[in-house]
Amino acid sequence: MALVSRGSHHLKPGVANSFDQQAGNLASLVRSYYQRGWVPATSSNFSVRSEDNEDWIVISQSGKDKEYIASHDFMLVDLEGQCIQPKGAKPSAETLLHTSLYKNTEIGAVLHTHSLDSIMAAEVLRENGVISMQGLELLKAFSGIETHESTIDIPVFQNIQDMKELSERVLHSFSKSGWPVGYVIEGHGIYTWGKSLAEAKRHLEALEYLFNFHLRRKNHGGH
Amino acid sequence: MALVSRGSHHLKPGVANSFDQQAGNLASLVRSYYQRGWVPATSSNFSVRSEDNEDWIVISQSGKDKEYIASHDFMLVDLEGQCIQPKGAKPSAETLLHTSLYKNTEIGAVLHTHSLDSIMAAEVLRENGVISMQGLELLKAFSGIETHESTIDIPVFQNIQDMKELSERVLHSFSKSGWPVGYVIEGHGIYTWGKSLAEAKRHLEALEYLFNFHLRRKNHGGH
Amino acid sequence: MALVSRGSHHLKPGVANSFDQQAGNLASLVRSYYQRGWVPATSSNFSVRSEDNEDWIVISQSGKDKEYIASHDFMLVDLEGQCIQPKGAKPSAETLLHTSLYKNTEIGAVLHTHSLDSIMAAEVLRENGVISMQGLELLKAFSGIETHESTIDIPVFQNIQDMKELSERVLHSFSKSGWPVGYVIEGHGIYTWGKSLAEAKRHLEALEYLFNFHLRRKNHGGH
Amino acid sequence: MALVSRGSHHLKPGVANSFDQQAGNLASLVRSYYQRGWVPATSSNFSVRSEDNEDWIVISQSGKDKEYIASHDFMLVDLEGQCIQPKGAKPSAETLLHTSLYKNTEIGAVLHTHSLDSIMAAEVLRENGVISMQGLELLKAFSGIETHESTIDIPVFQNIQDMKELSERVLHSFSKSGWPVGYVIEGHGIYTWGKSLAEAKRHLEALEYLFNFHLRRKNHGGH
Repeated sequence: MALVSRGSHHLKPGVANSFDQQAGNLASLVRSYYQRGWVPATSSNFSVRSEDNEDWIVISQSGKDKEYIASHDFMLVDLEGQCIQPKGAKPSAETLLHTSLYKNTEIGAVLHTHSLDSIMAAEVLRENGVISMQGLELLKAFSGIETHESTIDIPVFQNIQDMKELSERVLHSFSKSGWPVGYVIEGHGIYTWGKSLAEAKRHLEALEYLFNFHLRRKNHGGH
Repeated sequence: MALVSRGSHHLKPGVANSFDQQAGNLASLVRSYYQRGWVPATSSNFSVRSEDNEDWIVISQSGKDKEYIASHDFMLVDLEGQCIQPKGAKPSAETLLHTSLYKNTEIGAVLHTHSLDSIMAAEVLRENGVISMQGLELLKAFSGIETHESTIDIPVFQNIQDMKELSERVLHSFSKSGWPVGYVIEGHGIYTWGKSLAEAKRHLEALEYLFNFHLRRKNHGGH
Repeated sequence: MALVSRGSHHLKPGVANSFDQQAGNLASLVRSYYQRGWVPATSSNFSVRSEDNEDWIVISQSGKDKEYIASHDFMLVDLEGQCIQPKGAKPSAETLLHTSLYKNTEIGAVLHTHSLDSIMAAEVLRENGVISMQGLELLKAFSGIETHESTIDIPVFQNIQDMKELSERVLHSFSKSGWPVGYVIEGHGIYTWGKSLAEAKRHLEALEYLFNFHLRRKNHGGH
Repeated sequence: MALVSRGSHHLKPGVANSFDQQAGNLASLVRSYYQRGWVPATSSNFSVRSEDNEDWIVISQSGKDKEYIASHDFMLVDLEGQCIQPKGAKPSAETLLHTSLYKNTEIGAVLHTHSLDSIMAAEVLRENGVISMQGLELLKAFSGIETHESTIDIPVFQNIQDMKELSERVLHSFSKSGWPVGYVIEGHGIYTWGKSLAEAKRHLEALEYLFNFHLRRKNHGGH
């Protein structure tokens, strides 16, 4: 995806009337992922670009239990990760990993889970810094891929607690090697995104499926 | 199942009043399969023969998310896979794999999933082009089988993106070796069918169970 | 459990007014087990002794899909497995395996599933004709067991399609070796029971848990 | 957590009006854990400190099926495990393992499950009496841990049926080695706790996730 620059046309927060619906849709998806075991307890973060202002991000607040997450557990931040509303809401430490993606592409949603398959894949399948997956029909879930005879490479980054540094390493890598459909942080989890929430969902579920298949193949003595 | 020829007695689309109920029943089943992980994201296709006209097929439209699929995500096509209604609805690329089965047998429903067990079975258990399974009571889920001392062979086909070619290879193989209860496409998923939706459901769940058992047996060092 | 003889005091079928509630409770449990994958498609049978007449059994009818099973999918049979009501309802071929248990003990419920863990356990863990399990706190789920330092032996029988012969072999074995808490049929599934439906449920879930643990231990190289 | 002494200011049982809500919240969580397979049948115990009196504990009654557990399946006990209400309710034999924790710390909730991963972890991963886990982002789910470069040690105790003796061994070990975030009893299950039910939930789900990861890593030949 190409880098974009876009004008800033902030609406007043009080005018933002898509928030509840966007947060509610996202909350519903997150609760579903909790049930799959991808987002234990209060872990993981999820966001969509606001329909009211393209420089605003609707993102889950810090420390909310994902089994029960609802629209009021989300907040609006700007592209620097600063709180717009509700006043005093605490953004997650990883908010920067979300906003830096929105700032540099036209994506509309970012999904981050702690799924064990993504972590195992990084540990078991990584070669030359990427998890390379090919040969499955489901690769066609990624925009632009039209045959199973394709390969996707998911880069793996070392886990560090300095989010600014981590987000810079991620973007630096993407600027050199091109934007992947997602990336994994060692011992931590997966980030993926899409033009819309629907596309990001498709990418996440496809990646989980691909990780799972390649881990099972490895388990059965496959390559 | 024997090949059948049947008269064409098209009703006007507007008269088709079983559509909503048939699509709704099928949608409910598909959502249930989504929860099992057999149809990630927008993958997979499902169809039943219309009760209004035996030359019409009720089939899932292209690109619908299976977690939320509902009756309005289905469409009517004819046996060539051409859209009857709703106007402008886009059939999946794999529609031909469904209609070619309906055209050549008296089946009433076709279920296709991307289940990982079916793909793993094709990779791990295949011998001489088929996955051969025997010895389980659940084999009696297939019409005509009355003892666990039976064997079913599920043929495996190479995945290709040319659906016309693929459907011809499938039918050619069936015309030579007889109709199986289902088949697997490498790295892609499973197709199965039945006289009714209830029978196709029984076949799909039995096949998944059989794949799962034989994979687990293999994992435990069995044959 | 001791053999019992009991007087016969048939009520008229029309008087049986506990049927709906007993069948409904059982149906609810079966749907829950379907969701766990223990009763794929139309497989498996479930029964409770009628509260209206101790010589009547409420049992699932043949061929009902367990995902949707409801009280109207059950029937009343006598201890020979003959239909009492509704008229014309078809008992499962395995009804005899249920009624022969009720006839010879005071149990109130029989649960039979096709769970893969029970089948794998029979294949992987059997020694001298039994699956022997010990050392787990959950053994206390079985009536009369008060410490984890206990052992239960689950006998395994060969699968045959002659239900009369099979039920005789089962009862003959029990009369020699004492009544176990359940038994497994090779490549088929598990039978367990209890004084009440609640106890049978506790036994089934404990057995599944024990099978699963011992299979996992075996997988990790344990004994 | 430091030991605390606190004044006793018993309210009359009839005044306890938080009971229903606290028991209801806990019941809802337990039903959710049942669905994950962590609390088969009637096993496991769950408790929270009463909001009406810090020397009262809301705890599940003995022998209740966890699939259906509701607020009326709980009871109030004092810190010696004696029943306060409802009159005649039977506390679980393991009540002492709960109350001894409340007596010696300021925790507000104790969760105990029979999860197979906790038991397998004790069997497969234990070294020098503890399950040692490190390197995962989810370690930050534990209060006071701020980086994945941390280690938690979960002590493992031998299973015995004398609850008084077991609870003394547990507390003696904690007084020597410091309070862990939870402990495992061999062949039995896990105990964990937190200042609030929310924190205990976070701890339990994080521990299950960590066990699962380390078992999978071991399975893939990792250390």
